[in-house]
Amino acid sequence: MATQTVSIDSRAVVPSVDSHKIAILGFGTVGSSVARILSEGRVDGLKLSHVFNRDVQRKRALWAGQGVKWTENIEDVLASDAEFVVEAMGGVEPARQWVRAILESGRSVVTANKQLIARHGSELLEVAREYECQLLFGASVAGGVPVITALEHGLAGDELESVCGILNGTCNYILSKMEGGESFRCALEQAQLLGYAEADPTDDIAGYDTRAKLVILARVALRTEITLDEVACQPISCVDPVDFEYARELGCTIRQIGHAELERDRCLAAVEPMLVPLSSPLARAQGCENVVLTQGKFGGSTALSGPGAGGNATAVAVISDLVTLSHAFANPRVRVARTLPVSSECTARYFLRFVVRDRPGIVAAIATALAKFEINVDAVFQKPGYDKSRLPFVVTVEPCSSARLKSALAEIALNEFLIEPPLRLRIFGH
Amino acid sequence: MATQTVSIDSRAVVPSVDSHKIAILGFGTVGSSVARILSEGRVDGLKLSHVFNRDVQRKRALWAGQGVKWTENIEDVLASDAEFVVEAMGGVEPARQWVRAILESGRSVVTANKQLIARHGSELLEVAREYECQLLFGASVAGGVPVITALEHGLAGDELESVCGILNGTCNYILSKMEGGESFRCALEQAQLLGYAEADPTDDIAGYDTRAKLVILARVALRTEITLDEVACQPISCVDPVDFEYARELGCTIRQIGHAELERDRCLAAVEPMLVPLSSPLARAQGCENVVLTQGKFGGSTALSGPGAGGNATAVAVISDLVTLSHAFANPRVRVARTLPVSSECTARYFLRFVVRDRPGIVAAIATALAKFEINVDAVFQKPGYDKSRLPFVVTVEPCSSARLKSALAEIALNEFLIEPPLRLRIFGH
Repeated sequence: MATQTVSIDSRAVVPSVDSHKIAILGFGTVGSSVARILSEGRVDGLKLSHVFNRDVQRKRALWAGQGVKWTENIEDVLASDAEFVVEAMGGVEPARQWVRAILESGRSVVTANKQLIARHGSELLEVAREYECQLLFGASVAGGVPVITALEHGLAGDELESVCGILNGTCNYILSKMEGGESFRCALEQAQLLGYAEADPTDDIAGYDTRAKLVILARVALRTEITLDEVACQPISCVDPVDFEYARELGCTIRQIGHAELERDRCLAAVEPMLVPLSSPLARAQGCENVVLTQGKFGGSTALSGPGAGGNATAVAVISDLVTLSHAFANPRVRVARTLPVSSECTARYFLRFVVRDRPGIVAAIATALAKFEINVDAVFQKPGYDKSRLPFVVTVEPCSSARLKSALAEIALNEFLIEPPLRLRIFGH
Repeated sequence: MATQTVSIDSRAVVPSVDSHKIAILGFGTVGSSVARILSEGRVDGLKLSHVFNRDVQRKRALWAGQGVKWTENIEDVLASDAEFVVEAMGGVEPARQWVRAILESGRSVVTANKQLIARHGSELLEVAREYECQLLFGASVAGGVPVITALEHGLAGDELESVCGILNGTCNYILSKMEGGESFRCALEQAQLLGYAEADPTDDIAGYDTRAKLVILARVALRTEITLDEVACQPISCVDPVDFEYARELGCTIRQIGHAELERDRCLAAVEPMLVPLSSPLARAQGCENVVLTQGKFGGSTALSGPGAGGNATAVAVISDLVTLSHAFANPRVRVARTLPVSSECTARYFLRFVVRDRPGIVAAIATALAKFEINVDAVFQKPGYDKSRLPFVVTVEPCSSARLKSALAEIALNEFLIEPPLRLRIFGH
């Protein structure tokens, strides 16, 4: 196979314009993950310059990075030369007030704060427009799943008619456990022990967390403003393990679903535990996974899924928004790719299917040939009902080098018992 | 439930800047779908102005829209006032030459042409950079699934380590059929009858179509240039129905997978039929559906799925790119959302769970109360093994008004045989 000249860096380096300085408000799980990724310097054109937090002393002790100014005074950030500000404090106030002040200073803001955006997004977007800067909130829904970008840009050409999804990892964890027979109380306690659920889990269980995300999705996907108070929530605590048994009879399971749908002059929206068919992407969300489904007038249905929470997944969404802001300054967008040689050689598990004229000793002959190339047999399968003169059977092997397996099969192919060349299929995963 | 003042248009109207004029090259399936959506005037700020095609007379006869100039001469497009050009001709030449000329005239281009972008994307992106315009190709991979946008923007903050997917609807249709026991030949013939496969299906079956998309995904997701010739392809015609039987024993099915993965100083890439676990999103792709999975260093794994082909799905991707171009001119981006009242009332199927002290006539009492509110019982389920003094059973009802069901349940709740209030869960879908 042809290979090209190799010319590599550890990452493709974009010709560096001056870096954009970034201030982070709040050094909790998300803020510190963003700081860590930025300070590893892998995202060209972005440089962490300021961190605001209460009790700076304690937080700074957790941080080894250089060249960052720490402050307990928001005025320092407003007076700084930071171009972009990441709001990672959470809560509605003082976040709203401060984000407003930052936008009014002409700086763009990236936030992961769903309550802020659900309640005051419309107002703050208007401020951003007035002051010619941006307010991006890709991290506010579904953590690392690029839902907001996909809806706002990738599906901008469609007219979306409905959006729904599993937006709360805690509820999904609890319902997955109940699916296995646990009581609600017991599943909740486990979620609390594992740190998936808060000591007071009301926000998750009652559906308020999902509701905030649904309000944001309705704005972005359906271009419709709805308010939190308008969306009815049914808590998942009403579901009993017996309901899963009956749901299964119906080919379904139970998930907490937030859904919004346009219907003439109104928007049907609610957060509630629902029966979902086992064949739906919604049924397959396990643990803390998030899923979003949209239905478009032209493009039909689209599904996005991935890790819904966690500092890193959310930080990726924040940094993606920062990259979008930095690209807006570099028009036309610079895309640089390195050139790498390609190989299809790999270490993998394989499925080998042989079609043979049956006689004793065939499996032994194959296993011996494989062993000679240091390939271990995992299992042998032979289904009944096939003619002995043309018998298909399957050998799976433990992870092995694809090159060595090729050599082994070439040798095996010489055997007179084979009716056709062996089939080799890689098994996805490792 | 509170409702807000209603203020609606059939679609949220963005304060109109002057519309951007658009020329379309090629009036086939994709080009005519794009033209139709644009001419319905639902995408504010975009106006179809020119259509280029050979044999204009025949094509124009299929078109009722007004105010569009038709031409058989590419020079007319180059001399026109169209700002953005949609290349929907397909094929490598003359598409490459014309796209190049258009970019050199400073106009941005949107294309759905995977062979062009796989072979010459790198060169054409460089031209776009030099002439300060854009080349967007969101429609070149996975039709209506916003893969390119999601990878390039939504996951820009991650370092993606691998990308893989089901990228060819024809192969997926054939393998789905073979999963049901059909031979390869028979499944292919059905695909041809339905118009899913070409008379000469080599491009699909041999993996060349998927390979072109994989080269594009590697560029966007892994920021790595690989060439078509470097990617090994194994045709799906090597798979026999018996392989599905054995795959099932392993908890797997078989799909055509294109995959690319970074490993130190090289890129492992191939297109091949693989065993995929039934639990994977890859296994669940049915018919012409496309799926893309990415694995990121920080954000973990993300899945995107949806309709991979068809004029409308592809047109949505083209128009989404046009919207992105038009937004680049309106900085800061304008987002306008209408305000709608919210309702959680709907017509849906429901799952009703009752816990009762058992005695004869309970089901009859419930069914009678439901009938009074014009609600039809769909099925009654009662699992064995529960105590008669605290018996849970389930009634499902045909699609009904949620308001009427609420009234019916309020009346049913008055019955002395109920131990707790009935549980009502909506069944997803209709």
